[in-house]
Amino acid sequence: MRKSIFAGLLILIVSMATAQTPDIHKIRSYREQHENSWISQYLSFLSIPNIASVPSDMQLNSGRIMDLMKERSVQNIQLLYPDTKNAPPAVYGEMMVPGAKQTIIFYAHYDGQPVDSTKWAKGLHPFKPVIINGPLQEQNEFIVFSNTVKINPEWRIAGRGSSDDKAGVMAILLAYEAMKACGLTPIYNIKFFFEGEEEAGSTHLNEILQKYESLLQSDLWIICDGPVHQSGKKMVSFGVRGDAGMELTVYGSKRPLHSGHYGNWAPNPALQLSKLLASMKDDDGKVLVKGFYDKVKPLTLTEKKALAAVPSVDTQLKEELGFIQAETKDQSLVNSIMLPSININGMQSAGTGKLASNVIPTTATANLDLRLVPGTDYIEQQQLIEAHIRRQGFYITHEDPTSDERKQYAKITKVTLSKGYNAQRTQMELPIAQKVIAAVRSTTKDQVVLLPSMGGSLPLFLFEKYLSAKTITVPIANHDNNQHAENENLRIQNFWSGIETMAALMLMK
Amino acid sequence: MRKSIFAGLLILIVSMATAQTPDIHKIRSYREQHENSWISQYLSFLSIPNIASVPSDMQLNSGRIMDLMKERSVQNIQLLYPDTKNAPPAVYGEMMVPGAKQTIIFYAHYDGQPVDSTKWAKGLHPFKPVIINGPLQEQNEFIVFSNTVKINPEWRIAGRGSSDDKAGVMAILLAYEAMKACGLTPIYNIKFFFEGEEEAGSTHLNEILQKYESLLQSDLWIICDGPVHQSGKKMVSFGVRGDAGMELTVYGSKRPLHSGHYGNWAPNPALQLSKLLASMKDDDGKVLVKGFYDKVKPLTLTEKKALAAVPSVDTQLKEELGFIQAETKDQSLVNSIMLPSININGMQSAGTGKLASNVIPTTATANLDLRLVPGTDYIEQQQLIEAHIRRQGFYITHEDPTSDERKQYAKITKVTLSKGYNAQRTQMELPIAQKVIAAVRSTTKDQVVLLPSMGGSLPLFLFEKYLSAKTITVPIANHDNNQHAENENLRIQNFWSGIETMAALMLMK
Repeated sequence: MRKSIFAGLLILIVSMATAQTPDIHKIRSYREQHENSWISQYLSFLSIPNIASVPSDMQLNSGRIMDLMKERSVQNIQLLYPDTKNAPPAVYGEMMVPGAKQTIIFYAHYDGQPVDSTKWAKGLHPFKPVIINGPLQEQNEFIVFSNTVKINPEWRIAGRGSSDDKAGVMAILLAYEAMKACGLTPIYNIKFFFEGEEEAGSTHLNEILQKYESLLQSDLWIICDGPVHQSGKKMVSFGVRGDAGMELTVYGSKRPLHSGHYGNWAPNPALQLSKLLASMKDDDGKVLVKGFYDKVKPLTLTEKKALAAVPSVDTQLKEELGFIQAETKDQSLVNSIMLPSININGMQSAGTGKLASNVIPTTATANLDLRLVPGTDYIEQQQLIEAHIRRQGFYITHEDPTSDERKQYAKITKVTLSKGYNAQRTQMELPIAQKVIAAVRSTTKDQVVLLPSMGGSLPLFLFEKYLSAKTITVPIANHDNNQHAENENLRIQNFWSGIETMAALMLMK
Repeated sequence: MRKSIFAGLLILIVSMATAQTPDIHKIRSYREQHENSWISQYLSFLSIPNIASVPSDMQLNSGRIMDLMKERSVQNIQLLYPDTKNAPPAVYGEMMVPGAKQTIIFYAHYDGQPVDSTKWAKGLHPFKPVIINGPLQEQNEFIVFSNTVKINPEWRIAGRGSSDDKAGVMAILLAYEAMKACGLTPIYNIKFFFEGEEEAGSTHLNEILQKYESLLQSDLWIICDGPVHQSGKKMVSFGVRGDAGMELTVYGSKRPLHSGHYGNWAPNPALQLSKLLASMKDDDGKVLVKGFYDKVKPLTLTEKKALAAVPSVDTQLKEELGFIQAETKDQSLVNSIMLPSININGMQSAGTGKLASNVIPTTATANLDLRLVPGTDYIEQQQLIEAHIRRQGFYITHEDPTSDERKQYAKITKVTLSKGYNAQRTQMELPIAQKVIAAVRSTTKDQVVLLPSMGGSLPLFLFEKYLSAKTITVPIANHDNNQHAENENLRIQNFWSGIETMAALMLMK
């Protein structure tokens, strides 16, 4: 206990000592002289639609990124195409540093989530980026932008990709510009890799990584994607949960039955499904599937300490989200996401509300989302759940049941398994991880939140699998950025801070 | 036990002794001479669309029924309108028998369920009735009907209302025609009451019963509606279950949350709802809601004997419906429907299948159908379920929860109560009930199935409430008639037998 406090104090002192180095001050001064030009370039970049499934959009975006690289004299600029036709390319560039023995690749993605522009607030449009005078409100005030207007860092840029993840692309390239303009030289080779298909599931990323294996050799990938901590503090995340899906369909009578004539005699699949789902978790949110937690890799002491230091946002979040009790009762958000999980994403059986009728449904379906943590394998977890379903007395099929199966088994579930991927985590104790932490700390007087894993999932295992590479995620966007939804926005101060973070990482010692 | 067997034998002997009286033979001979004319009149009646919400349809149908009555010299023919405008009238007629002290009213309804003609099989149309050569198949053979074709009683007439319930209207009027033509005279006054709004919920039936209270005084209503027993045997049913609805909505976060970032921390309403529903029934289908069965009126000895004599159709039905285990495990269908019940009619939370996404749903909803039996009150049963929900730790609201409620309660369910009605049952032991049984038995060598209650619901309580009247249901349609669905049909032999049954009831001693 005493030792832990001492370690904490030491970290605090070191952190304060290293906060905001002279290099960062130079970067900041340079930025202050270029703010209007940079925002102008960014608005122009955001006005190019960026849905991964539209090849012409992807061509325009990748072309613009190449231009942005050329203007900054990035070397060896090229498009990395997967073998699959019409899939968007990654944009590559590099700065080879004489004498450098190690290489860092900076990753961001330029495609965005699909949009429904009718859902955007008045005056906002996914691909007509605007600046508003603060967080989104019922009535937003719009800024008339010019090359001379004084920019308030609390303003927000609204548009698809503004935070997820053209912000990453732009912050990395502007950090690079500033670093060079200030005469600062990294000791690592710097490479840029901007993916064009992340929001579409990174379907062809494996092809690119395999095809360009030698070009993409590195000692570390910095993944610049996602929001910083909900407390507003800068964050370094060392891993992600894995993800896989399962859909369960329980069967009753072949045809819908009148719930008067046959009710409480004919089996009701909605009730059977409810009982099955209810059997999977106890009242404290603990998964009751046998073996579900058995292979979870325990957190290291460093990771535990990092977790303990994460500022609690639970109360703030509950207030914002409108509930008072977490599923995991007394367990905090940050501890909950260190565990594998089962979530019901959706449930359906016959109709409710105006669509309800007096029938006993023929089927009932639940869509389950599994999250994985280091040590657990998604196929094994799916198998454990199947075993659990069998223990509840169900026969499992992977197709609709045949007449013969119906004659043989009293309770039948069709299980549809989705392909998934496992969790990934980089050890916080690694020297290069410690250097990343130090670099981010060098940019701020505040605490830097260190997260062993994020709750969400990214296919970071691909980098490990195809390149044996390490990844560390350093997000820059504000947490209330409406990621993946309408009215996506970036707080300008997060942009400025993000540029400093990226520069510090390029200059990391 | 011995006594029961003896009673059974006695019933059998009495039944065989009374089977097929000379009167019924006269009715049958008359029918055999008029089959083609009758079918022709019936097809013409079926070709008039009969959706209760279309006033012009109802006008045509009620007009046709008045014509059919006039042709048969029914007395005092009139339309009984409710006070509410544009609601369809009941068609009334009577035969006052000199010296008769008692009155029987024959009820059927002329409106039908709404139709989607695109769902009907090839060659079939709800309001273009046709004759097919047997039960519905993939490929149906159509009969070219004429006034001379020899009618096979296994043929079926297909069209909306063919079995539910223009068959009732027509069988009653044809029985009346045959009875009079054969020179047979009832000892009861006979009245006809054909409702035009049964499939629309009998919304204005109460108004008609109150307005025409003195005209509608009687000693018994014979309700001719619904199918005979699944075994094909004739049936007399002494009651119906009551019916009421409830919809439950459980609440989670105010906005959909990413199931990675917040999964197994944020409460999942689909899981909470599953646990709530699972808590309502045990694995044998027994309702676990406290007090749910407490007020159930026990069956009388006569009712128990009648139930024990009902031929089992469970094996046949399970085979047909594609399951091998009833919800109530070892309890038969006929015993199950003597109990009150909860059924999940539908369930919905976010999306499944192609509509699934990685979210924690904000709400989960289940639509519940309650069936009532004599002794239980629908409002009390709804209250018992609400009490059960509270015992599971939920706060109950009847509106969407307010922010304050969200801050105060960990688990919230919105309960939406539907108006319902209670069960109705006429005592089988009553002398007039015994006469009905004897009359139906007089038409057949087969067993007559006596059912204390049907599983389904009809608002028969209205007759009790507004007229203090007794009701007994005597259905005539085949059980595989696709009632309420596409391809509704009537087996012609059921029509012939039904006419004999109705005639026997008019001539009941």
